[in-house]
Amino acid sequence: MAFNVHPWKIIQHGLDLNNIRLCESLMSVGNGYMGMRGNYEEDFTGDTHIGTYIGGIWFPDKTRFGWWKNGYPAYFGKVINAVRMNGIHVIIDGETVDLAKMPCEEYSCELDMQTGVISRSFTVQTAKGKARVSLRRFLSAAQKELMAISYTITPDHDAEIECCPYLDGHVKNLDSNYDETFWEMLEEEETENALALKTKTKDNPFGTPRFTVATAMSLWSDELDLEEKTLHEGYVEARYTGTVSAGTAATIEKYVLCFTDRDQDVQLLMTLALKAAARAKEIGFEAALEAHCGVWKSRWAACDVEITGDQPAQQGIRYNLFQLLCTYTGEDARLNIGPKGFSGEKYGGGTYWDTEAFCFPLYLAVSGEHVAKQLLLYRHMQLDGAYHNAKMQGLSGALYPMVTFTGVECHNEWEITFEEIHRNAAIAHAIYEYTAYTGDESYQMAEGLDVLCGIACFYSGRVHFNKRTQQYMIHGVTGPNEYENNVNNNWYTNRMAAWCIAYFCDLYEKATPDRREALPVSPDEIPHMRDIAANMYLPEDTQLGIFVQHDTFLDKDLMPASALPESDRPLNKHWSWDRILRSCFIKQGDVLQGLYFLNHLYDHDVKKRNFDFYEPMTVHESSLSPCIHAILAAELQYHEKSVEMFERTARLDLDNINHDTDDGLHITSMSGSWLSIVHGFAGMRTVDGLRFSPFLPAKWEGYAFQLLYRGRTLRVEVDKRQAKVNLLAGEPVSLWLYDRMFELKDSISAVLR
Amino acid sequence: MAFNVHPWKIIQHGLDLNNIRLCESLMSVGNGYMGMRGNYEEDFTGDTHIGTYIGGIWFPDKTRFGWWKNGYPAYFGKVINAVRMNGIHVIIDGETVDLAKMPCEEYSCELDMQTGVISRSFTVQTAKGKARVSLRRFLSAAQKELMAISYTITPDHDAEIECCPYLDGHVKNLDSNYDETFWEMLEEEETENALALKTKTKDNPFGTPRFTVATAMSLWSDELDLEEKTLHEGYVEARYTGTVSAGTAATIEKYVLCFTDRDQDVQLLMTLALKAAARAKEIGFEAALEAHCGVWKSRWAACDVEITGDQPAQQGIRYNLFQLLCTYTGEDARLNIGPKGFSGEKYGGGTYWDTEAFCFPLYLAVSGEHVAKQLLLYRHMQLDGAYHNAKMQGLSGALYPMVTFTGVECHNEWEITFEEIHRNAAIAHAIYEYTAYTGDESYQMAEGLDVLCGIACFYSGRVHFNKRTQQYMIHGVTGPNEYENNVNNNWYTNRMAAWCIAYFCDLYEKATPDRREALPVSPDEIPHMRDIAANMYLPEDTQLGIFVQHDTFLDKDLMPASALPESDRPLNKHWSWDRILRSCFIKQGDVLQGLYFLNHLYDHDVKKRNFDFYEPMTVHESSLSPCIHAILAAELQYHEKSVEMFERTARLDLDNINHDTDDGLHITSMSGSWLSIVHGFAGMRTVDGLRFSPFLPAKWEGYAFQLLYRGRTLRVEVDKRQAKVNLLAGEPVSLWLYDRMFELKDSISAVLR
Repeated sequence: MAFNVHPWKIIQHGLDLNNIRLCESLMSVGNGYMGMRGNYEEDFTGDTHIGTYIGGIWFPDKTRFGWWKNGYPAYFGKVINAVRMNGIHVIIDGETVDLAKMPCEEYSCELDMQTGVISRSFTVQTAKGKARVSLRRFLSAAQKELMAISYTITPDHDAEIECCPYLDGHVKNLDSNYDETFWEMLEEEETENALALKTKTKDNPFGTPRFTVATAMSLWSDELDLEEKTLHEGYVEARYTGTVSAGTAATIEKYVLCFTDRDQDVQLLMTLALKAAARAKEIGFEAALEAHCGVWKSRWAACDVEITGDQPAQQGIRYNLFQLLCTYTGEDARLNIGPKGFSGEKYGGGTYWDTEAFCFPLYLAVSGEHVAKQLLLYRHMQLDGAYHNAKMQGLSGALYPMVTFTGVECHNEWEITFEEIHRNAAIAHAIYEYTAYTGDESYQMAEGLDVLCGIACFYSGRVHFNKRTQQYMIHGVTGPNEYENNVNNNWYTNRMAAWCIAYFCDLYEKATPDRREALPVSPDEIPHMRDIAANMYLPEDTQLGIFVQHDTFLDKDLMPASALPESDRPLNKHWSWDRILRSCFIKQGDVLQGLYFLNHLYDHDVKKRNFDFYEPMTVHESSLSPCIHAILAAELQYHEKSVEMFERTARLDLDNINHDTDDGLHITSMSGSWLSIVHGFAGMRTVDGLRFSPFLPAKWEGYAFQLLYRGRTLRVEVDKRQAKVNLLAGEPVSLWLYDRMFELKDSISAVLR
Repeated sequence: MAFNVHPWKIIQHGLDLNNIRLCESLMSVGNGYMGMRGNYEEDFTGDTHIGTYIGGIWFPDKTRFGWWKNGYPAYFGKVINAVRMNGIHVIIDGETVDLAKMPCEEYSCELDMQTGVISRSFTVQTAKGKARVSLRRFLSAAQKELMAISYTITPDHDAEIECCPYLDGHVKNLDSNYDETFWEMLEEEETENALALKTKTKDNPFGTPRFTVATAMSLWSDELDLEEKTLHEGYVEARYTGTVSAGTAATIEKYVLCFTDRDQDVQLLMTLALKAAARAKEIGFEAALEAHCGVWKSRWAACDVEITGDQPAQQGIRYNLFQLLCTYTGEDARLNIGPKGFSGEKYGGGTYWDTEAFCFPLYLAVSGEHVAKQLLLYRHMQLDGAYHNAKMQGLSGALYPMVTFTGVECHNEWEITFEEIHRNAAIAHAIYEYTAYTGDESYQMAEGLDVLCGIACFYSGRVHFNKRTQQYMIHGVTGPNEYENNVNNNWYTNRMAAWCIAYFCDLYEKATPDRREALPVSPDEIPHMRDIAANMYLPEDTQLGIFVQHDTFLDKDLMPASALPESDRPLNKHWSWDRILRSCFIKQGDVLQGLYFLNHLYDHDVKKRNFDFYEPMTVHESSLSPCIHAILAAELQYHEKSVEMFERTARLDLDNINHDTDDGLHITSMSGSWLSIVHGFAGMRTVDGLRFSPFLPAKWEGYAFQLLYRGRTLRVEVDKRQAKVNLLAGEPVSLWLYDRMFELKDSISAVLR
């Protein structure tokens, strides 16, 4: 594979038929509303994963099996593959262009991260001669329903060229338990200027919503003539043909517009799509492209991270930011951030705790408060679902789901669904973080308090009182370390549960009588909740001076991950689940995740002892793991370890480190590289005032990043000599740089430590 | 429902359309080779579960899902529904007989347990008049491939009667994950005297064996004439018609013969089946019935249990014995005892640890050593599969499967498959029990030693050494109490593992050098294995004087099951899995199962303290649970508790106590009622000599049972006055009655205690 390192581009030179799916993943683009893998426009008979996804269009894929038990959800919700939009059958001299079969030269494909435009070009050889193909494609950041392609063929001989742009509703999910299709074909229609088809997700036995999608295309060509239009069930096509003289560039433009009944009246969908397609053709490719690029330009102005002295890292961090901004824009509070974004189907595209635990701080700082608040409101809107989930387990309060579209749980491994109850705490923590960062208490006292109440009630009902030790315990959980299941008294879960309960009780006591009245908890319950928070059992080993991951963790055969043979890594590909569960090896920070979240409550020595104990046993086989360790290592002055951890996040997909990027990108962990730089290298903390304690990775020349903070734009710059914070816009603000407080008016700096 | 209590019969008077599946389950019959539910011969459009099963004919039903992990088996093996054998379309006066629709009177159905014959009769009403139908059906105990039906219609008017006996290969499994069909239709053939069809299990991606089955039928009628034969793909039928005068009985006999390539050359199957069918017709119904009844007569002579003063119990114990003898005859060592026998599909019909833990002692005593040895050989034949299973987990030695047909695991809940490793111990224990009962050491030193070696090596590799406590531990298991998963140091598992290792080491040291040489263990390993057995951590609470179910069991919120509201029972229908797992309630004996198996190693006080502690928390929601408690309670002189537990096993299906008999019978737990009487009430022990310490349940007049013991037939009789043991056949033998040793020549007795 030949992906060049470039500060702003992902460039592939030369066709690599063995890695098509990987390239398709890397060339994925999205606009928050919809997205697609980097599939070829032309027919392709090689190994490929055609994937187009529309945010919030999902299907409940049944997963019920013989061994079902009470409380198991019966389906796994999945963002499903939607109408194929970018397809064009291309026939030159009567030969179908198919890069798996046709001789091809000078292939290159490029994603420009500055603009989000895919450019691809190659020369194919027919029996009669060569033809150069080049195309540009973008999913508009300015008009969310629009995808546009400009496709140009330049033969070196007089060639018969046929281009058949089409829309195809007959798509299958790669990820489908019963190998079913999820779409019904409803209708096809043509107007003078456009062709469209309407599809609807199939009926399902679970009563979840069905979605209708209308997709239309309009076309324009300079050298080719429209021959005929074809409308089949779930398929529309227009055939353009022409004889193109040697050296002449023949271009065809395809505009695809996609509307759904999530946003529009279902009756009007087809008309809307057809009209919008016709209108897009009128506006034209270049004008649409300009509007699109303008949006990206302003995005980058707010969020770019610059690294000097490390081009691969520079490319990596920009790629990650680019993909995160492709995935979530905050325009629609009903959407969230799927683990693969729009780049694949694995994990189903639902919402995980990844959002609050790993992505939230980034959107808060680079997209701003209003976008971060949309993420908080998402959970508030789904509070009913969370109450439902708890009820299904026979419990009170609200249990936010492990995976969801609606708030209702749609994941069903019991050891995850029932047991990974720590996820609730990340949602509470995001409210806390939002409040600390913005200084705005209004959310936590309004919608936030409803959410916190549900969470605190859930945890209060999930404990049991151990009469022997006179402490509250939480049995039967899975902590963030999913390489252990069904453990008792996971320190992280117990600690965060106690923190959530106390957080709620504090706010409850601050709330107005009216506000209290509106909550589903009575004042009598507060003392009991306080008692739980105060007397929660938190396993600790005083001899080792550490918090104990769970009750019997220290009984395990403890050894560092460095003792593992290289050939056993990653463990999840080489070891049985049995062996993994019983081993001491930690998939992602567990106690350390707690010390990251509650960073302000623990001192340096506690963090150091726990880091020194747990990090060596951590195999970081979750892409969410390294960043937390990069941040803690930075704080503990383990600079090399911090950089090592950063490097595992920065180019995870670009370098296909986990050998699974062919399935799609690791979107939710992409924030990890930003967190590593901002919270790690630059040491940003936001509780009790804004703080920075930067260091510079040994091999870097410098780095800089921007932040939106309480109505201001800050730029942090670190080089070999100094750390500097500039106020680019907004009122002066107080902040800490290392251990000194400054009033930032224009710029402050300190010698680098 | 109206099932009369009767000492030898299961009688249903009156049609109950709401409970057809339950009746079908209860009227199931089998002959070890094949079996069927009590389905109607006629067409039936009501709720029904047509089920015919052939021992050892199974299919690997895929179960792979998105969250697959290393070591999960990809399929669940299932004994699959086979060609429907007993069907006859019956048309009277042009109206199809269908008891769901046609008026019906004087319905009765009867299973005679003494002979295994089903008799059914009823009167139907057509527009022209009434007709009495009566039929008898049996699956021959004398010729395993034969099912025969004699079907008689007597109209009260001159009636047009049409009977179309058929064989139908188009069957579906009720239990099929992907709702697939599992059969291919291969061929249909007719001869002058018979019709046959051949089916083959479909190809599968797992490389498991496929099976071919040829099923033929021959027919005879007195009053009806053969009109035509029909052969479709997978379906053969013969149409008989005639005008039958009022009061005349028209009979049709159907003989079905079923051969498979498990036993026969696949090329000859059709010929064999066709010829055997023709021959069966020659022999005739009554002669075949006589041969069949003769076999049952001799079975009962050896195994009957008589109870006086409790007719329901009498019926229950006979029903259980009848069904067990229908399920397993020991003729084919490749077969075993599925949890539902031939009465349904739930649990897939594979082999579970139920066989060794609950059924083995019964077959040993009532079917004899040779039958019990077949059960031992089954595991020996599957030793390669057990080694394979361990290897799939990255472990050494042999891990017998949770569910299997071949020795290879085909169940895939990780908490069961990987973790319920105690099952190995039950297999070792059966070898121990066989040796103790028969006094014959040859098996344990021959095939038995191979099995024990694999089991001991597995356990030795599954422990880890805890450096802190200098003891061996076993983490990550599920004990017999499946209401807890993934616990550490389950006392039962650790104790039985240590026992298995020590048992193997003892035999190893007794083995000849040649025998040792042939084992896959080197002499150097024995001291380490001894060390493990000696230093296995066995959790104990000295204050309470009990063994602790597992590491953190005592941290739970402990309370007796009597504190549960009745409406919560059974917990598995009312509680979420999460709540069950975290509760203290025990599905089936766990520590107590160990005290049952290793009964000879623990004294009365230990048993009493543990029984008193655990039994009150036990909800007995496994049908395998009560019998163990009946036996221990009897030993502890808790006579009422013992009887209560017996009563939960004796009529579990007849009274549909668990409300799930419609799915099929609880075959493997049926032995529990026999164990309760023989090991419980009569206090039989077989380690260190044969011992009895009988008591008589308060409301009984007396009970008696027979045993095959070391070439002798013993009869134990208990009445209100005395306990008596008679030697019915064989040489004198020493045995203990209560605390006194006797030389039994003819009869001994003691006053009842």
